[in-house]
Amino acid sequence: MRLVLDAMGGDHAPGAPVEGALLFARAHPDHEVLLVGDRERMVPLLGRGRPPSNLHLHHASEVVEMDDHASSAFRRKRDSSLRVGFELVRDGKADALVSAGNSGAVMAGGLLTLGRLPGVERPAIATLFPALKGGGRCLLLDAGANVDCRPTHLAQFGVMGEAYVRSRLGVARPRVAVLSNGEEASKGTPLTREASELLRRSDLDFVGYVEGKDLFSGDVQVVVTDGFTGNIVLKTSEGVGMGVIGLLRQAIEKRGGLPEKLGALLLQPALAGLRRVVDYAEYGGAPLLGIQGVGIVAHGRSTPRALYNALGAALATARGGLQEELTRCIERASVWLPTHQKGKKATDEAVSD
Amino acid sequence: MRLVLDAMGGDHAPGAPVEGALLFARAHPDHEVLLVGDRERMVPLLGRGRPPSNLHLHHASEVVEMDDHASSAFRRKRDSSLRVGFELVRDGKADALVSAGNSGAVMAGGLLTLGRLPGVERPAIATLFPALKGGGRCLLLDAGANVDCRPTHLAQFGVMGEAYVRSRLGVARPRVAVLSNGEEASKGTPLTREASELLRRSDLDFVGYVEGKDLFSGDVQVVVTDGFTGNIVLKTSEGVGMGVIGLLRQAIEKRGGLPEKLGALLLQPALAGLRRVVDYAEYGGAPLLGIQGVGIVAHGRSTPRALYNALGAALATARGGLQEELTRCIERASVWLPTHQKGKKATDEAVSD
Repeated sequence: MRLVLDAMGGDHAPGAPVEGALLFARAHPDHEVLLVGDRERMVPLLGRGRPPSNLHLHHASEVVEMDDHASSAFRRKRDSSLRVGFELVRDGKADALVSAGNSGAVMAGGLLTLGRLPGVERPAIATLFPALKGGGRCLLLDAGANVDCRPTHLAQFGVMGEAYVRSRLGVARPRVAVLSNGEEASKGTPLTREASELLRRSDLDFVGYVEGKDLFSGDVQVVVTDGFTGNIVLKTSEGVGMGVIGLLRQAIEKRGGLPEKLGALLLQPALAGLRRVVDYAEYGGAPLLGIQGVGIVAHGRSTPRALYNALGAALATARGGLQEELTRCIERASVWLPTHQKGKKATDEAVSD
Repeated sequence: MRLVLDAMGGDHAPGAPVEGALLFARAHPDHEVLLVGDRERMVPLLGRGRPPSNLHLHHASEVVEMDDHASSAFRRKRDSSLRVGFELVRDGKADALVSAGNSGAVMAGGLLTLGRLPGVERPAIATLFPALKGGGRCLLLDAGANVDCRPTHLAQFGVMGEAYVRSRLGVARPRVAVLSNGEEASKGTPLTREASELLRRSDLDFVGYVEGKDLFSGDVQVVVTDGFTGNIVLKTSEGVGMGVIGLLRQAIEKRGGLPEKLGALLLQPALAGLRRVVDYAEYGGAPLLGIQGVGIVAHGRSTPRALYNALGAALATARGGLQEELTRCIERASVWLPTHQKGKKATDEAVSD
């Protein structure tokens, strides 16, 4: 496999991407990594020794910034690392792209360069949450790409999410739910109610509404929501997880007694495990489901380790016919889920969201 | 002060309310507690000794159930504990009401029995989040009452939240924000963008958009959102907080070595503090801001300790002219925030939401 890593995307670019690419290339000699970005800034970061032979630099002179307007910046900056990277995927010179940059621009780039899978109205960012009980994990989508969703979009997210969890995580029959403000069918918004009605007609194992806490319960494996709510859920859980860890550390330092210090030392392995579960760095990347090709959105604050993991996610997503499975499931779902948004106009609408 | 506690509301009713009322009445001999509910079920729970003289039972034969349709159940069940309790407040026989029951019904009851403060379009559930950094706390509203919000509603939530934090938490100049899926002004939905435009015209210390993680950063003290998103944020943070604690415990038990057990023992005070911060039980109740009177929504899973705290929140909210301050601020805000929804029709609309 040949994987593109956007060297200019994310808060710690290009340092973190270059280091992440080095880690990955060394650990996976059978695969190739293409670092796309400003060559003059990348070269000094490679260090003194000879870089691994499976690591390649590909120059691109522009950068889509975090505060750029996503789609217009992607369109305007024709030599941006993100755009050049996606074109490598489009032209068959790479199998997947990973970027920790502006997630709206990654989505716009996927839509404009690679296009949507047949029948897909809106691609979604699919983020895997750690289950804090029971051991299973839960896929949340959309985690931020589509602010303005229609019921058919949410239903398609359910179809794609189910296919992903089944084929990538090996869950035989994932349970699918709609995120709402209560479990009773009378709760929710017109969007969640209509999406639920659609999903109820499907052949998925649809369980109805779940609440925010159920993302971590291990009871459901796929939860669909609009990108506005999904992003807020993501950031809220990140805030709590990191905050709790900080608080624990603070309590230990503040009390400062020998017992607490000893306690913290003895609990170090448990705390490290805890941190790994809540920390995005270990989680790596979220695939864009529904585009014709593999695009992975990594967290803006990604460390080298996070980007190493995101490249691993790209490998797992690109391997073994996921796109075909997604296409098959969307096609099969058209019996109960008629879709209408085809062609360029729909792409433009999705991009502008 | 005379405080009504709905003895039939919540997952552990009437046991938890009766026990919480006993705790509170004993600890606060200067105040009266009115337990409203099924007398025959309450009496045996009072135990053998003579109940405190400041604890009174008030019979009500019906119960608004958790899965009842909120407003119609409140209207239909004329002898429900919730309705009888609110009527005691309306008739001046009590100063505040606390219920761990159906929060939609508590809101409907507040609207229908007590009515709205002058100029208020929609009351909101105001939930206080623990700050996990910096020590300050953050008020989120609406945390679940109004699923379908307009920009003026969110702006009024900002006004009421600011008044509450200033007068109850003693923060001189609270920073107010709109919850969104990113900090850039280009993010958000039409609702968040229009609400931000309104708040920008205000004399509040309005900082624009914040993300979910900022609820715990200590940087802002008031965050406004619609009740759908607010409820999901609340439940998500609850899920993460409880899950992380469970995971820590699990890791300790699973590894099971003497070092970990010793570590956990030594860290017990820190872990207990942590739990107190994330656990709703210690947080007690969320006031309904914007109704003519004091109504406190407690968590459905409230323990006796949680209801004890919610009664404390009722006391704090009922004391010292909060209603007058809210009315004054809403009135003053009408310069930049013209409101239109007055009279019975608007109440009906708010109730049906």
